Amino acid sequence: MTNKKLSLDQLMQARYGKSIPLAIDLNETLETIFKHRSIRTYCDKPLPKDTLELLIAAGQSASNSSNLQSWSLVAIEDEGRKDRLAQLSGNQAHIRTCPLFLVWLADLSRLEALGKKRELPHEGLNYLELVTVCIVDAALASQNAALAAESLGLSIVYIGGIRNNPEAVAKELNLPPRIFPVFGMCVGYCDPEKSSSIKPRLPQAAVAHREQYDAQKTIDAVEEYCREMDAFYKENNMKTNGDWAQHSLHRIRGPESLNGREFMRDWLKKLGFQAK
Amino acid sequence: MTNKKLSLDQLMQARYGKSIPLAIDLNETLETIFKHRSIRTYCDKPLPKDTLELLIAAGQSASNSSNLQSWSLVAIEDEGRKDRLAQLSGNQAHIRTCPLFLVWLADLSRLEALGKKRELPHEGLNYLELVTVCIVDAALASQNAALAAESLGLSIVYIGGIRNNPEAVAKELNLPPRIFPVFGMCVGYCDPEKSSSIKPRLPQAAVAHREQYDAQKTIDAVEEYCREMDAFYKENNMKTNGDWAQHSLHRIRGPESLNGREFMRDWLKKLGFQAK
Repeated sequence: MTNKKLSLDQLMQARYGKSIPLAIDLNETLETIFKHRSIRTYCDKPLPKDTLELLIAAGQSASNSSNLQSWSLVAIEDEGRKDRLAQLSGNQAHIRTCPLFLVWLADLSRLEALGKKRELPHEGLNYLELVTVCIVDAALASQNAALAAESLGLSIVYIGGIRNNPEAVAKELNLPPRIFPVFGMCVGYCDPEKSSSIKPRLPQAAVAHREQYDAQKTIDAVEEYCREMDAFYKENNMKTNGDWAQHSLHRIRGPESLNGREFMRDWLKKLGFQAK
Repeated sequence: MTNKKLSLDQLMQARYGKSIPLAIDLNETLETIFKHRSIRTYCDKPLPKDTLELLIAAGQSASNSSNLQSWSLVAIEDEGRKDRLAQLSGNQAHIRTCPLFLVWLADLSRLEALGKKRELPHEGLNYLELVTVCIVDAALASQNAALAAESLGLSIVYIGGIRNNPEAVAKELNLPPRIFPVFGMCVGYCDPEKSSSIKPRLPQAAVAHREQYDAQKTIDAVEEYCREMDAFYKENNMKTNGDWAQHSLHRIRGPESLNGREFMRDWLKKLGFQAK
């Protein structure tokens, strides 16, 4: 799928399970964006030389808040460390099998160190706003890196499971205080024997509004999506816990479904964030 | 600058203020990523037909957490509303002058509405983890949209100022509870009479680590950056409040420097988030 040339209409068809005619000429960037699938099966083909440096440069080319650049990453290739991080992230095998595992960090430690060194006040770091800033900075950078990787024919998958045990991850990566791991990212070549389909997303009517938010329109579109996804699950022989609404709600049914992440407020404190 | 063909080396030079040789072939996606500059001067040339639908599709093609798709956006073209949102976001004129202003929303309301409708538990929504999830989802989507826009020759700038007055913004956009505006984004054609340079970022050594985090390396690289940025400010006749360290620290000196965002914990509650 990755190497086949598709028209914009075919790409929209895959993304929404139906045609959405758009009067726009397809270009390579759009193609990279629309072809994205999360890949969890990697082969052991090594990455092109300088891939990591390229992904860092892509990340750093994203917008960030007030040029504070409040994110960092740790790149992991060591087998033992990948194995330990896999165990800490819900035992996801692809963290072991991918050649490069990136841990994206919300990082206020650099600014704190600078404040101490220059003896200038930096109390703003103690506020929840700055936690938001560094999460957003890390996310924007990571998405640029994801697309840069995909433009080279590599595949990626984001790993939210890195937040299951953030204190242990911080210890493994030797993180100073005021840094937390927001998510991981596997990078590598997709195993050509395994394939996966682009998963259809909610109809545009469910997520996008003009001028003001229309809650009723959203819910109608969600019900339409649930019916469409049922057909997709059947076609792809996917076993799901009920329809999209049911298994999504199951995922957020309560603290017991959050895999340790229900303690985020506590571990943020332990990792040095006041988040006032 | 936007239309000129640049080599990867020239793009790295602009991004880091120095050459970083990379053994990678430049492609259009990488070019889009590396050419990014935030643009605050728009001309009144209308957007191509179907731009909004394309940007939504780009956003929806990004990864998201557990396919919960916990983000939304409101697209604003109405002059009066853009003007009011400009006033609420630190009076930034480009929100008025851009033809399309997007407000990116961290949205747990859709899942809540679904939980109520299906009569299924959804208590997980009350945790800070889910606030993280919806911020990250919105950010990944937005960065895809940003690159999609830039691939069409459009320009963008992120507007963190939308968090200065989130309750008033929520009222203006008729947002149900459990939604908050994470950031805005201006979209439009850059005024060709005004130009801006790519702003150099921190050296890679300051943000990227192999295997484990190295705090000392970071600080040395930051000091190097401060010297380089001084030269950049001079070249571009930019008046700054001291060097990068000084004006960055000034930005986070205390609650008084956060433009209302120091109350995030309070307004999250008012907007229906428990964030336990």
